[in-house]
Amino acid sequence: MTQVTAQISVSLDGFYAGPIAAGDVPGWMEGPEAPGFFRVTRWVTDAASWRDRQGFAGGERSADSELIDGYFEAAGAYVMGRRMFDAGEVPWGDVPPFRAPVFVVTHRPREPLVREGGTTFTFVTEGPERAVELARAAVAAKRTGGTDVAVAGGGSMVRTLLGAGLVDRFDLHVVPVLLGDGLRLFDSDLGLAPDEGIELTASEATTSNGVVHLRYRIGGRRTLHLDDRGSGGGTVREETAASTA
Amino acid sequence: MTQVTAQISVSLDGFYAGPIAAGDVPGWMEGPEAPGFFRVTRWVTDAASWRDRQGFAGGERSADSELIDGYFEAAGAYVMGRRMFDAGEVPWGDVPPFRAPVFVVTHRPREPLVREGGTTFTFVTEGPERAVELARAAVAAKRTGGTDVAVAGGGSMVRTLLGAGLVDRFDLHVVPVLLGDGLRLFDSDLGLAPDEGIELTASEATTSNGVVHLRYRIGGRRTLHLDDRGSGGGTVREETAASTA
Repeated sequence: MTQVTAQISVSLDGFYAGPIAAGDVPGWMEGPEAPGFFRVTRWVTDAASWRDRQGFAGGERSADSELIDGYFEAAGAYVMGRRMFDAGEVPWGDVPPFRAPVFVVTHRPREPLVREGGTTFTFVTEGPERAVELARAAVAAKRTGGTDVAVAGGGSMVRTLLGAGLVDRFDLHVVPVLLGDGLRLFDSDLGLAPDEGIELTASEATTSNGVVHLRYRIGGRRTLHLDDRGSGGGTVREETAASTA
Repeated sequence: MTQVTAQISVSLDGFYAGPIAAGDVPGWMEGPEAPGFFRVTRWVTDAASWRDRQGFAGGERSADSELIDGYFEAAGAYVMGRRMFDAGEVPWGDVPPFRAPVFVVTHRPREPLVREGGTTFTFVTEGPERAVELARAAVAAKRTGGTDVAVAGGGSMVRTLLGAGLVDRFDLHVVPVLLGDGLRLFDSDLGLAPDEGIELTASEATTSNGVVHLRYRIGGRRTLHLDDRGSGGGTVREETAASTA
């Protein structure tokens, strides 16, 4: 059974990168987004499994490295936002780390881009739901070993798919830093009424090098009930008063 | 050694209550803040130790209940925001749950309010830092058994004191629900530059009834360094290419 998974790293105050540059900057690396982004993803770039995939030497063989390896292994196809693709296209080079079909949600039609090592980028102009459908079909066609559809990012795509109820399992990596400002994972209204919430089911959290890894199953939208057991239920004091009256 | 502690419950998307009412509502309980607030604090209102303190019957004797009991026991004095005090003054009644001195930060001078059971409310018009000083002095004077200064809330006061570097230990209770909108714990700029962060040290996270309890020691403000080991460090591929060239 194909599941759709998403995972992303955020600061304790909920940012996955620093703020977008107000004016022109020489390059993304010189802009205000980069320091926050590298801070919250440092546990990833330090991990041996991630470095292997990128073709980089070194890195730590740790619980974090195993977790990341698990994500790569499980992913049979990816869904990705346009902004993340634009940022990654050049640095990923001829052998991108995905080694599986990647469906990029964009408004700009473009021919598929076939890279070495099993990665193909297909540009989907019919919206995120269609990209998930295509990724599911790619997994079903068993073009690769992984059985999940993985949301590669960025934060905006993760939020959109969570809000649309298209994600089954969501992992949030909470990095022990406050950034104060930046790109916020949950910045937009999910379209919930004040008495409505999306209920989740939490697994045990794990901590590695100070990063807390949370894992959730996503439930549906539910009406929030006022819990008045605190004020409406019989109180000890009232009961005592009644019995001594 | 007196430490300043703060703890608060939030949804996974970072809200501690629903949104503030746009217009008049009959009462706070009927307004849009309440459903979100009761959802994220349900684990507290369900706990026996909290109910005992409020004079309410029932509740669960659980790990959550012990955690809450520990907070009450450790608090020798409290610092509280004005909005929380206004909301609580009537419902807390003649015997508020604090049983210790409470220092309320407000712009409106008011005579101290002495309640039964050891709770006194002192109104501090010289700002949050002064309230923390007064609470430290109250703990030092050993008027009660607890040794911590505890930030009682609400969210705005917790954020202010964290940003000012006045909190030593911070516990965040992450409740498994997305609310989409409301009062956000980290809504305001903490006054950090894009290349600056407040570093934290995480303890092991615990999970109880789906609520993840995170505990942090608060470090200082630090400059965030771009981590270019991923792109700048020698790559396996480059090294291989060089050795076979």
